Amino acid sequence: MITWNNLDTLESFKELSDVKKVNLAEVMTGENGAERVKNYSVPMAAGMAYNYAAKQVDDDVLEALKKLAKEAQLTEKYAALYNGEVINTGEKRLVLHQLTRGQLGDTVTADGVDKRAFYVEQQQKIADFANKVHAGQITNAAGEKFTTVVQIGIGGSDLGPRAMYLALENWAKKNDKFKMEAKFISNVDPDDAAGVLSTIDVAHSIFVLVSKSGTTLETLTNESFVKDALKNAGLDASRHMIAVTSETSPLAKSDDYLAAFFMDDYIGGRYSSTSAVGGAVLSLAFGPEVFADFLAGAAEEDSLAKNEDVMQNPAMLDALIGVYERNILGYPSTAVLPYSQALSRFPAHLQQLDMESNGKSVNRFGEPVDYVTGPVIFGEPGTNGQHSFYQLLHQGTDIVPLQFIGFKNNQMDTDVVIQGSTSQQKLCANVAAQIVAFACGKADDNNNKNFEGGRPSSIIIGEQVNPASLGALLAHFENKVMFQGFLWNLNSFDQEGVQLGKVLAKRVLAHETDGALKVFSDLLNI
Amino acid sequence: MITWNNLDTLESFKELSDVKKVNLAEVMTGENGAERVKNYSVPMAAGMAYNYAAKQVDDDVLEALKKLAKEAQLTEKYAALYNGEVINTGEKRLVLHQLTRGQLGDTVTADGVDKRAFYVEQQQKIADFANKVHAGQITNAAGEKFTTVVQIGIGGSDLGPRAMYLALENWAKKNDKFKMEAKFISNVDPDDAAGVLSTIDVAHSIFVLVSKSGTTLETLTNESFVKDALKNAGLDASRHMIAVTSETSPLAKSDDYLAAFFMDDYIGGRYSSTSAVGGAVLSLAFGPEVFADFLAGAAEEDSLAKNEDVMQNPAMLDALIGVYERNILGYPSTAVLPYSQALSRFPAHLQQLDMESNGKSVNRFGEPVDYVTGPVIFGEPGTNGQHSFYQLLHQGTDIVPLQFIGFKNNQMDTDVVIQGSTSQQKLCANVAAQIVAFACGKADDNNNKNFEGGRPSSIIIGEQVNPASLGALLAHFENKVMFQGFLWNLNSFDQEGVQLGKVLAKRVLAHETDGALKVFSDLLNI
Repeated sequence: MITWNNLDTLESFKELSDVKKVNLAEVMTGENGAERVKNYSVPMAAGMAYNYAAKQVDDDVLEALKKLAKEAQLTEKYAALYNGEVINTGEKRLVLHQLTRGQLGDTVTADGVDKRAFYVEQQQKIADFANKVHAGQITNAAGEKFTTVVQIGIGGSDLGPRAMYLALENWAKKNDKFKMEAKFISNVDPDDAAGVLSTIDVAHSIFVLVSKSGTTLETLTNESFVKDALKNAGLDASRHMIAVTSETSPLAKSDDYLAAFFMDDYIGGRYSSTSAVGGAVLSLAFGPEVFADFLAGAAEEDSLAKNEDVMQNPAMLDALIGVYERNILGYPSTAVLPYSQALSRFPAHLQQLDMESNGKSVNRFGEPVDYVTGPVIFGEPGTNGQHSFYQLLHQGTDIVPLQFIGFKNNQMDTDVVIQGSTSQQKLCANVAAQIVAFACGKADDNNNKNFEGGRPSSIIIGEQVNPASLGALLAHFENKVMFQGFLWNLNSFDQEGVQLGKVLAKRVLAHETDGALKVFSDLLNI
Repeated sequence: MITWNNLDTLESFKELSDVKKVNLAEVMTGENGAERVKNYSVPMAAGMAYNYAAKQVDDDVLEALKKLAKEAQLTEKYAALYNGEVINTGEKRLVLHQLTRGQLGDTVTADGVDKRAFYVEQQQKIADFANKVHAGQITNAAGEKFTTVVQIGIGGSDLGPRAMYLALENWAKKNDKFKMEAKFISNVDPDDAAGVLSTIDVAHSIFVLVSKSGTTLETLTNESFVKDALKNAGLDASRHMIAVTSETSPLAKSDDYLAAFFMDDYIGGRYSSTSAVGGAVLSLAFGPEVFADFLAGAAEEDSLAKNEDVMQNPAMLDALIGVYERNILGYPSTAVLPYSQALSRFPAHLQQLDMESNGKSVNRFGEPVDYVTGPVIFGEPGTNGQHSFYQLLHQGTDIVPLQFIGFKNNQMDTDVVIQGSTSQQKLCANVAAQIVAFACGKADDNNNKNFEGGRPSSIIIGEQVNPASLGALLAHFENKVMFQGFLWNLNSFDQEGVQLGKVLAKRVLAHETDGALKVFSDLLNI
């Protein structure tokens, strides 16, 4: 029997706040620090590991976190989710994104169909379509092969797929998996579409229109923009466009598209990279096999998240430590810092995933909560960030918990030796050095050069950014966010907070405003 | 006589904390809200205006902020800076980035030369060089014109120039100012350089190596990577490279470069976009006239920052409101939200500018301060962000002050009408709607759909992103950060917090580690 309780009503949460705080600089120094790095590590999928040695925890804190996981019934709630209960209570929907990559529990039936079978069917349809495009069986009207795919979508239909594409682009080029270049149009700013169109050959481009409802204003506007460009080039737009949408949307059966692939209401936009939303563009760019490997990595990570033993469940442990940092230690933000240029937009995706899921002030029953919830998430790849905002992370007045990601190998396999080491070694040396610098600091008589340390971080270490490890990374963070939502007793799967702005924007465009909104509209020449 | 005092010792700061807090939702409603939007606006350069109607201030708070500005001697401290006093006390240096765009006060002499004349001379040298490249007078060894310029630099040598290039790329294409495509290599991850090189024609590329000291490890490593690529293509690297550095650096007089252009120790990396660091790449990409217009916009904004009347000094007012939000209202982060795809990387530049300048815990005399300083800065362009992290901004448990930027016109001048409005109108309608949604909220019986409001924002409104407005925007934020540093009594011009990581990384590469660092190094295969 699952009970949904607020975090601050849990006995184990009160106990957690009484556990002695860890002096991170102290425990990470000397042989004790070395032992922590060896022991405080949890295996992940695709040969990765989550290392939390430099987090502000010790065995006592971990014991308390285990109790919290148990009392909050994290394992049971995850099971309820993947077995098809209505976890998205606000919108009265199932939450099934994990089902796009594997069957974790019972068969889930909704809308009269086996949903796992439905998602697999869509993947197969996409695979067939992509294979035909690559083989030149589906072409433009002149019978020429498509060379570019352009995703038109915003939010979850943009950030995740874009981050995944960028993460695998160079890997695919190196491994002979690169089929087509992908571009992305998202912003309603007309310069976004115009800018992208100025860099591509529309006659050889296929456009993927992504909108679950088929009513997203930005996306429909950009579709129209693109259709104008196709028409101006003397092309038949319907030969250049496919749709990814829900079966009930106006786009589903329109003649305006070469094909339509389906997702459904059980997959939120920010969780949709492994659905047709990511599947179409990634299968076209890299081939269906690459997308399948990506899904397999995610599925393996989803399975690990079922583990009742917190010490063998990286997403659950990451979630628990994050809540400890947010609600007991009082840190208001978290930085995500991948030491890999391939993951340059991964933090932007996590920013949506996390902040849109858990940036809420009411619990899943609509009652205000008395504790803080989702933190601000931001980040840039290392070593770039070191030369930018790390100053504040090291010596600022607020402590910002850090989430590092590092890989032993690069993707392109070209490197250079300078001062006795490769660039890849320098990259890895920097992330190792940062963890210890943040944790241990270094005393200096000159206060300006003094480092207090005590700044907590974790690191996920992998072999290389490739389809499987990328899928696992994505699933890890999705599951972390899910577990944190359970702990905070939130509905992590709706986003009512984005509605008011939409309503007011419509009013502005209809010139039905008064007061401040009217004057702002005038100032902006609307 | 200037006295440098900590914020919490100022009488006016104590008074400020006693001023009645403003109920933002209340004051922004109805006719009162309309009046605020009309009146709470300060003109900026290039036809822009800073509107703070939706900030949590009223005439009483503004009066207190004026007193604070006076007691903190903000105008006098700015004058001391541009007249050449040693404001960067930690490194015992002058702070002269404003001098790259105009003479604000006395002639400043350092290293035996008039520094304004020195910066102008470098601009002229760059202009001559760029004009010769564009005219085909400087070519590759085969006598062919260069078509691409690639900046190799990191931190301030990357983020600012990259953000500026992206901001003007489409404007230049539209206005017949586009001379060469620019690319950027920054990360020590070898996949960054390899990825960029895979997209360009090295035989027709000119590389700008940017390092003030001539010793930045990432940059020298990437230079070597690029030289290998040039050599492998059978090219003479010295015919393809120029240097931007200080006159005393090892790069300054090397035969490895076609030319060298100089900056100096009085310009910090994050303040260097208007020096040769931005000048070389932007003059090559868009022509020297465009760069000159950009400088003129910045110079005009710098002049406004001299105004003793806070109500006519947008950077000073912005700075004061930010400190009020941070130190009295207790908000820990700030989001920068440009409603312009051209400004997609402007927030990343501001993240460095702000967090590296004011993310400090000791004052300019090296004494720990008892108050919080620089906030976390993050942001993405709208409307993209609306479909991402705005959920937390609207309904999260923490209040995040917002800094909107909007323009009446787009750059590319192609648009489409959907549902009776253009994309540009939709873009502007959205930013207007967001300001009011954040400020006023909207009550709903369903708590999940309830918006409390009371979330403060400002907006800078301009005509269009063009060289002059971009220069003005850049200078506005540089000057805001400077004034905040004065208020917090920090040295905003050094960055000792980045040193420890560098030292430890060198130790890892030399295999001179023990404890936790040794084990992490092993885990990462270094």
